This record gives sequence, structure tokens and C-alpha cells, in this order.
Amino acid sequence: MPSYTAPTKDAQFILHDVLNISGKEIPGFADLDRDFTAAILEEAGKIASEVLAPLNMVGDTEGCRLENGVVYTPTGFKAAFDQMKDGGWPGIDMPEEYGGQNMPYVIGTAVGEFFSAANQAFTMYQGLTHGAASAILAHGTDAQKDKWLPKMVSCDWTGTMNLTEPHCGTDLGLMRTKAEPQDDGSYKITGQKIFISAGDHDMAENVVHLVLAKIPGGPEGIKGVSLFIVPKFLVDDEGNLGARNGVSVGKLEEKMGIHGNATCVMNYDEATGYLLGDMHKGMRAMFTMMNEARLGVGMQGLAQAEVAFQNALEYAKDRLQGRDVTGPKNPDGPADPLIVHPDIRRNLMEQKSFAEGARAFMLWGATLIDQAHRAKDKDADGLISLMTPVIKGFLTDKGFDMTVQAQQVYGGHGYIEEWGMSQFARDARIAMIYEGANGVQALDLVGRKLAQDGGKHVMAFFDLVKTFCKDEAETEGMAEFTGPVKTASKDLQAAAMYFMQEGMKNPNNALAGSYDFMHLFGHVCLGLMWAKMAKASLKALAEGTSDPVFHQTKLATARFYMARQLPMTATHLARIQSGADPVMALEAANF
Amino acid sequence: MPSYTAPTKDAQFILHDVLNISGKEIPGFADLDRDFTAAILEEAGKIASEVLAPLNMVGDTEGCRLENGVVYTPTGFKAAFDQMKDGGWPGIDMPEEYGGQNMPYVIGTAVGEFFSAANQAFTMYQGLTHGAASAILAHGTDAQKDKWLPKMVSCDWTGTMNLTEPHCGTDLGLMRTKAEPQDDGSYKITGQKIFISAGDHDMAENVVHLVLAKIPGGPEGIKGVSLFIVPKFLVDDEGNLGARNGVSVGKLEEKMGIHGNATCVMNYDEATGYLLGDMHKGMRAMFTMMNEARLGVGMQGLAQAEVAFQNALEYAKDRLQGRDVTGPKNPDGPADPLIVHPDIRRNLMEQKSFAEGARAFMLWGATLIDQAHRAKDKDADGLISLMTPVIKGFLTDKGFDMTVQAQQVYGGHGYIEEWGMSQFARDARIAMIYEGANGVQALDLVGRKLAQDGGKHVMAFFDLVKTFCKDEAETEGMAEFTGPVKTASKDLQAAAMYFMQEGMKNPNNALAGSYDFMHLFGHVCLGLMWAKMAKASLKALAEGTSDPVFHQTKLATARFYMARQLPMTATHLARIQSGADPVMALEAANF
Repeated sequence: MPSYTAPTKDAQFILHDVLNISGKEIPGFADLDRDFTAAILEEAGKIASEVLAPLNMVGDTEGCRLENGVVYTPTGFKAAFDQMKDGGWPGIDMPEEYGGQNMPYVIGTAVGEFFSAANQAFTMYQGLTHGAASAILAHGTDAQKDKWLPKMVSCDWTGTMNLTEPHCGTDLGLMRTKAEPQDDGSYKITGQKIFISAGDHDMAENVVHLVLAKIPGGPEGIKGVSLFIVPKFLVDDEGNLGARNGVSVGKLEEKMGIHGNATCVMNYDEATGYLLGDMHKGMRAMFTMMNEARLGVGMQGLAQAEVAFQNALEYAKDRLQGRDVTGPKNPDGPADPLIVHPDIRRNLMEQKSFAEGARAFMLWGATLIDQAHRAKDKDADGLISLMTPVIKGFLTDKGFDMTVQAQQVYGGHGYIEEWGMSQFARDARIAMIYEGANGVQALDLVGRKLAQDGGKHVMAFFDLVKTFCKDEAETEGMAEFTGPVKTASKDLQAAAMYFMQEGMKNPNNALAGSYDFMHLFGHVCLGLMWAKMAKASLKALAEGTSDPVFHQTKLATARFYMARQLPMTATHLARIQSGADPVMALEAANF
Repeated sequence: MPSYTAPTKDAQFILHDVLNISGKEIPGFADLDRDFTAAILEEAGKIASEVLAPLNMVGDTEGCRLENGVVYTPTGFKAAFDQMKDGGWPGIDMPEEYGGQNMPYVIGTAVGEFFSAANQAFTMYQGLTHGAASAILAHGTDAQKDKWLPKMVSCDWTGTMNLTEPHCGTDLGLMRTKAEPQDDGSYKITGQKIFISAGDHDMAENVVHLVLAKIPGGPEGIKGVSLFIVPKFLVDDEGNLGARNGVSVGKLEEKMGIHGNATCVMNYDEATGYLLGDMHKGMRAMFTMMNEARLGVGMQGLAQAEVAFQNALEYAKDRLQGRDVTGPKNPDGPADPLIVHPDIRRNLMEQKSFAEGARAFMLWGATLIDQAHRAKDKDADGLISLMTPVIKGFLTDKGFDMTVQAQQVYGGHGYIEEWGMSQFARDARIAMIYEGANGVQALDLVGRKLAQDGGKHVMAFFDLVKTFCKDEAETEGMAEFTGPVKTASKDLQAAAMYFMQEGMKNPNNALAGSYDFMHLFGHVCLGLMWAKMAKASLKALAEGTSDPVFHQTKLATARFYMARQLPMTATHLARIQSGADPVMALEAANF
């Protein structure tokens, strides 16, 4: 069975040596010193490796089952869920007034990676609850917050997000679910929603569904969509559970992975619902929390890559097969370990440099969210809004690729389910799809975010890279890192310039290159992260750190990223600059 | 449920317009005119789409089961297997004297793609039999051939290949299975083999295992390995089935995919076996058929990409979601079909240009095998030997990637099993692993094939590309295709040159770039194929073809490959030229 050890040391390095979080002028950040975060990370890491990880394969093998309308989670899930609740983990970054611990989002993200790596399907139950609670927090009335949030922050009640219908996913304007207004101010919700993660289960007393629906007579399309709170059990004014609401599970989907999570077809049959936020402004209510949700999904990509890498690395050290061509490394054994072989190294270094770079990127992104929300910094909000599709799209694409590479290290043993490597790939696959398929992320990036506020945010990003490279150009040992980042960033600028110039003539010149742009952007971000990590490690070494090996390893990994990954930017640029014609030439009928 | 239509028109175009097979001076090729191959391809396509494809999802869902030592295949497999046998398909390229149809390997490959695309797990039963029969054909005594081949060519008896043991896959020198010589000239085989595809089942009267084992007292390691024929049921001199041999199925593996194929742990307990080929020369016997087997696996990569593409394309045309940014294409409907969106096009064009390019590459490779075997052409043998790891490694890596991209077109519907897109990805995944994991293919290419016969074959490949580009540079309309191929080929030459120069100093400079080299080589080959297809289509158009749309589509797809895929060669070269240092810098303990 695979194992998982939370990368607490690496997270500490990023939080403190790279991001210097306790020095940031963000409310609540001054408390985040090394000892404080170490204690949290260690505790989270422990529950991740000891409680959640051992249930990962159980969840995959057993899956969920629907019996007489009741959904049962795999063996052990409920006890583990109770342990998570007892530890207060679901509400770690929720307001104290609703029972949370009010820690910054960056801390929630750091521990969220551990939980997700240990057991993605399990962690989704609380992840969806977090998303639904955030929506109520942002858009609910005080009465709604008081009624729903305390139980959701504690995960006594869990939450879901109901967007997709059988005939529409991305294009929610086509939605058919209806909300009929009632005399008491509530609504009767009728319709079918599909792909509802954590849609029902046996671990919580109640499930609070957030449901998008149309109020008859409202505007056509997406502008007539409103958001509703629809509980599984009705709740009275004292907070007691009442009658069962008109919502039921039609079916559990058979999926490629995340079997431990109940992906439900939800049927609403005149279910009682309560309007959340403004009428017909349901999409806006969804969008305000999308940055968080998408960052969370990007994190899942990283998380699966990390756990897959850990296991591939162990296997590469243990499995004896073949000999080092430069001379035996294990002369007394029957063969050398796999890790002596250059192509196995290449594979492992790709995984390692991705996981660590992605972790830095994600935690940086999370601090921007805190800066935006806690410090009301609009520039930070604009920057994270720009980078959100990159974090979601790039980290989940690459995260999946890395799980596939990790599987490859095992040869045939990676393909059988016994070793657990297949599950990492199967679970990681969903993150490329949900919360907006990655093609939609690319469209969001190029079609919307790039030009937002007159292109202000992308210019800010370029400035940030430029300033860093300029400032550090003179720092001893940094030129080998700032050089490649500068080159990569120039490729990104050239691509943005191409979109501006050629997209004016034909928007397809930009859209046909959107996916490449998202990846090009991702490489520049990870390159920047590696340069920042290199800077931190050079500083630590110069200051006589007690752990020189850790920092030398960082430098070597940064070099790998520069030499072996950043060259991709040139290819992405070349593809982008070929424009729409090669992509759009065919009539649909002639494909 | 997904569907499959055999791409017979495209195969015909490649066989005749591009490769001109009936004009080749290879014994048996003169018969291969358009009508003849059309009849075969149509018939094979029919059985693929009508008989095999409908069983693909059945095989995935039911899987095989082991009950009281007996393996049962999924519902419908046996009847389909009988139909394949009745049609004579398993022996299509086997010698007539053993009941085969003696057609060239290229025809077996062309129809093999159809069968494999329709149902990979099913087709493996006859694929493994073909491999085992080829080994007996190449290395058996006349008596062995007469005894085993007629029943294997007809698939009354099926075959398997037993190489891997629990502690060794790639490094077979570590093998423990023993073969004790008996007085009657036979051997007693004892040991355990794992990952034995088609290891046992209920569709044939007998299973003929080819087993690698060590005769005690022989040379150490790989040089002491011999190959044995070990039947499930012993066979007397008249060909009658006798007693059960000491071979049994220990377990069926749970796998990521190809559930319809029985992947067995095989236990040999003093089983009677017969030496095949020379004593201690078992690996040589295996190697002589490896080119064929690896080409066959590369074909599986293409096959899964093709069937996944077909379904993704249909979905992209049917599914209404969003609007074309340049103006509605389906103004009377609620939305436009997915295929209007540039990023969906980009995705589909990547799939299409891969599948068609790969088909040409594979069929070209198959003609080289015929040229080598039927025309005893040593140069062709050297060239296909060089390109075999490229076909296997590149086509299976890309083939899997394409199934993942096809799945992505479906959004959430691609992740649930109902639509069948997950199965294509899960099935395609194995081809990157078996018959030598792709890292081993890269090692074979760079560590062995490149320098084989003094580098003669890679020089021949470069010459072939150079000559084609030079010859066609003046042809009207060809410059846009020969230009990019020339550039890509120069990248490949620069990479080979780097290996020669820097690999002398340290072999790891070559090996650390081996995987990139395999992909770089693959892109050059597909680029060359696209240029050749463009040439054929330009010619057809100039001659006033009755199907101009087909050829214009070819040209547009060729342009896509040049603009959007070939630029990868520059990145691969840059990665290669960064050498071993970035890859090998870390101590194993410091990862």
C-alpha cells in the first residue's frame, strides 16, 4: 500500500524563507511565526498520514453505495470524518463567530494540500462544505449565516454545489431547473442536477445544497439564474432538523476515480429552497468564491503529484534492476536500484521540481487571496484573479502528468491496482475537468482576465518578474536563475503582444493559442518560484544554515527546472504565433 | 456507448497513394492492389465495428474471473473469438503451410489496428498467440512447428509470453524460474511468472506458454536463460490433448484497464516444457520477434487514440454549449456545437493529426518489416530496428495523451464510465508499459540502436529525410511542408551529434536525454509522414481527384502538424543539450 508523509519542512521553507508570511502586513499574519505554523503543519501532517492516507485505497476499492435512497461511504470514512471535525480542521480558516479558527487562507491551503494528498475523495466532503459555507458567508443575510454556518463550519452539516445539468455544464444559461416563489418568501425547486460531488452520504446530519435555478419570468439565459439554499432536512428557527425536503439521490455515478466520494444525480421535486444573495445574480454569487475553489482544485493537482512522487521515489530507491552504466552502485547486491538510471532520474526530477515549484506557486497565490480579502488589496485581488486559471489549469494538467510519470517508474506494478499508483492517476484526472474544464480556464485567462482592467494585472505580473530579475541580477549566484526566467517571461510577453495585435483582427488568433498560453504562463510562474526559492536557499547557505543539504538540493532542483522545463516556453510561443489558421482551417463536416 | 468505424479510406490512402505498396519489389506485394486491400480492410472493419467494439465496454465492466482455477472471459468474448477464427483473421500473415493466409505483415498491421481500436483487451488474446507462434516459427524444429503451429495459427490454441517475475521485469538476468533437464529430453519447469497477458481463459482448447527459465549449471545472469514451450495440456504425437500440465493460474490481477484480458500470475510446478531454440539463447529467441511485438504495441497507442478521437469528434459536433465568438453557427438552436470553439478545435486537430500521422508511420514501419523478412533486405532491417523503439515509445505515449485529450472534450461526461472515454485512456495506459517500458525503449534507442553498425542506420534515416526534402523542394506547394521537416530533422541531427560528442565523455550525457530524443525522433518521423501525405494529396488534386475534400483536409491537417507539433523538436533539443548535470546532480538520498 502506498504511504504519505506531509512535506512540512518544504511548506515551512516556502512560508517563511520564501514568502516571509509573518512579515506581511496582512491582518492575522503577524501571528504566523515559524513555531506556530510548524505546530499546525505537523499536526495536520500526522492526521493526513495516519488517518486519511490508510483510507485512500479503501475508498477506491469499496466506493460509495446507494441503498434505498441512502448513500453509504466506505468503511472507516465516518470515524475519520469525526476525527477531522474534532480537530477543528474543516473550519480552520473560517470566522470565529461561526466556530472557525479564523486562520488565514494560506494556512488552510497548506494543510489542505496534505489532506488532499492523503485522500482526495475523502477531503472533498469538507472541501465542498467549505465552498458552500464561503458562499453563504459572502452572500447570505445575517439570519442565514446564523442558521447555516455554525453547523457547516463544524461539518456537522456538509455542503454541495449544484450547477451542472444533463444538457449543460459550461454553458449554464441553458439551465432548466426552476424555482417557483412561494408566499412565505421561500421557493419550490424542481429539476435535475448531475455530477454533484459529496451529494449525499452518511457522515453528517444534514446536507446543505447550494442550487442554481431559474425563477420563472426572469431574464433569459445566464442573467436569469439565482442561487438557493436547499437543505436535505428542513431546519426550524431553533436549528432543529425537521422534515425531509423534496431532494433525493437519483443515482451514484461510476467514475474513473475518486470512488470514495459520492458523485450524485440529485433530483429536486418541489424542494423548499431559500434565495441566497440577489435574485437573478446567482452566477455572481458563484463567481466571488471561484478563485478560492479553483485554487483549491489546482492544489489537488499538486497534491496527487506529491503523493505519487513520494511513492515513486521510494520504489526507485528500493527496486533493484539493472546496473549503473558508469559502474555498479550496489556491487554486493544482485542489481542496482532503479534510481541510478538517468532516465529514472529525469522522470523523478520532473516530478520533484513540479511538486515543489507548484507548492510555492499555490502558497503564494493563497497569500494573495489573504491580501485581497483581509487587507482589502485590490491589486492583489486583480493579480490572483489573473493567475487563478493558470493555477487551476496548469497545476492540474501537470499534476496529472506527474502521477502518470510516477506510475511509469513502477513498470507493470504501476498498472495493477495493488500498488496504488493507478489510483493517484485516476483520482488526479478529475481535477482537469471539474470547477471549469481546463479549456474553459484557458478561455477565461485569454478571453477575460488578460484584458481585465485594461490589462493592468498582466502588466503588474510582468513588472513583478522584471523587478525581481533586475533586483537579483547582481546577487551572487542568481544569474543562472534570473536569466532563464527573463527569457521565459519575454516569451510570455511576446505571446500576450501577439494576442493583442492579432486578436483584434480575429479573436480566434488569441483563442486558438489560449491553452498554450495558459501553460506558457504556468512555466513562467514556476520558473519565478524556483528563482525565488533559489534566492532563499543561497541566502540560507550564505548565512551558514544548519541544513546545507536541504538548500543545496533546492538549488540543484531549481537548475533542473531552468534547464529542462523552462525551454517549453519557446515551443508554446511558436505554437501561439502560428495563429488561428492551422487550427480553424477545416469545416466541421470535414474533420 | 462509444462507437467505432474503421478508417479504411485513410488506410487505403496510405497504403496506395503514399506507400505505393503494390509497386514495391517485395515478394507478395504485387498482389496488393487497391481492390484487393479494400476488400480485406472493409471486411476487417466490419467485424471490428460490429462484433468487437460492442464487447469493449462489456469486457471492461465484467472483467475476467477466476473460479476454482478456471478463468472465464466476459460475456460474448468466446462467440466473437470463434467468429474471428472462422474468418481466418488470426493467421492472416502466417504461412499457408500452417493454415495461415500468408499475407504481408503490413496487411496484418492494417487490420490489427482496427481490431485493437475496437477492443484492445480482446485482440490481445490473438496478438499474444501471434507472438508466440512467430517465436516457434523462427526458432522451432520442424517437428515443433508441425506440432504447435497449425493449432496456434487457427487460434484453437492460444499462446502467451512468460518473462516477468515478481522481482524482475526489465532485468531478466535476475530470473529464478528453473528448468531441470529430464531423461526424455524435456524439462521440468518450476517458478512463478507474473503479468502474463491472456495467461488462461475459456476460449481455446489449450494454452501454449512460452516461458523463459534457467537451466541449472548454465551461465550466470541473462546469458543463462533459455526459452521453453510449456502447454497447459500435454499434447501427444498425434496432436491429441492429454493430461493437464503442472501449470496453474495463481491469481488474476486487478488492473487500471484492459479488464477483458486475463492478466495472470502463472505458477509452474514441475511443468513439462520443451526447449525452443538453443540452450541459454532464450533472450536471442525473444529478441528476434521483438521488433514485431513492439510495432504491435505502438499500433495499440494509435488504435486507442483513433477510437477516442472518433467519439470525441462526434460529441464535439453534437453537444451544444456556448456560442462561437465570431458569430452564432447554430442560430436557431439554444447554443452552438462544441466544435466551433477554437480550443476544442486545437484539441481535435492534435488528435487527428496524431492518429493519421501515426497510421502512416506504422504502416511504413510494417512495410520495412516485410522488406526485411520477405525481401531479405538488411538495410530495411537496420532501419526498422532503429525506429522500433520510436514507434513503440512515441506512439504509445502520444496515443495515451490523445485518449486523455479526447476524454477532456466530454467534460464531466468523460470522467464517468458511462460514455466509455475513461476506458480508452485506462486501456491505452498499459501500452506505455508492457513490451518494455518506454524509458527502456529510449535506452534501447540511444544506448544501442543509434550506434548500431557504426551508426549506419541513423545516417540512412537522415539521408532519407534529406533526399525527400531536396527532391520535393521544387515541387509546387511542397515547400511549406519540407521546410519544417528539414528544421526538425536538423534538431534531431544536432541531438545525435551532442550524444556522440558528450556521451564519449560521460554516457549519462546521452542517457539523460534519451527520452527527449525518442520524442524528438518521433516528431521528425510524423513530420516526414505528413510531408509525404501532403505530396500524395497535392498530386491527387493536381490530377483532378474525384474526392478533393479528402485531400484538402489532408493538406490542412499536415499544416497543423507543421505549425503546432513540430516546434516541439526545439524544446527537446534544448533539454538534451543541457546534458546530464541537471538530471544527475542529486545524491539518491537527497531527493
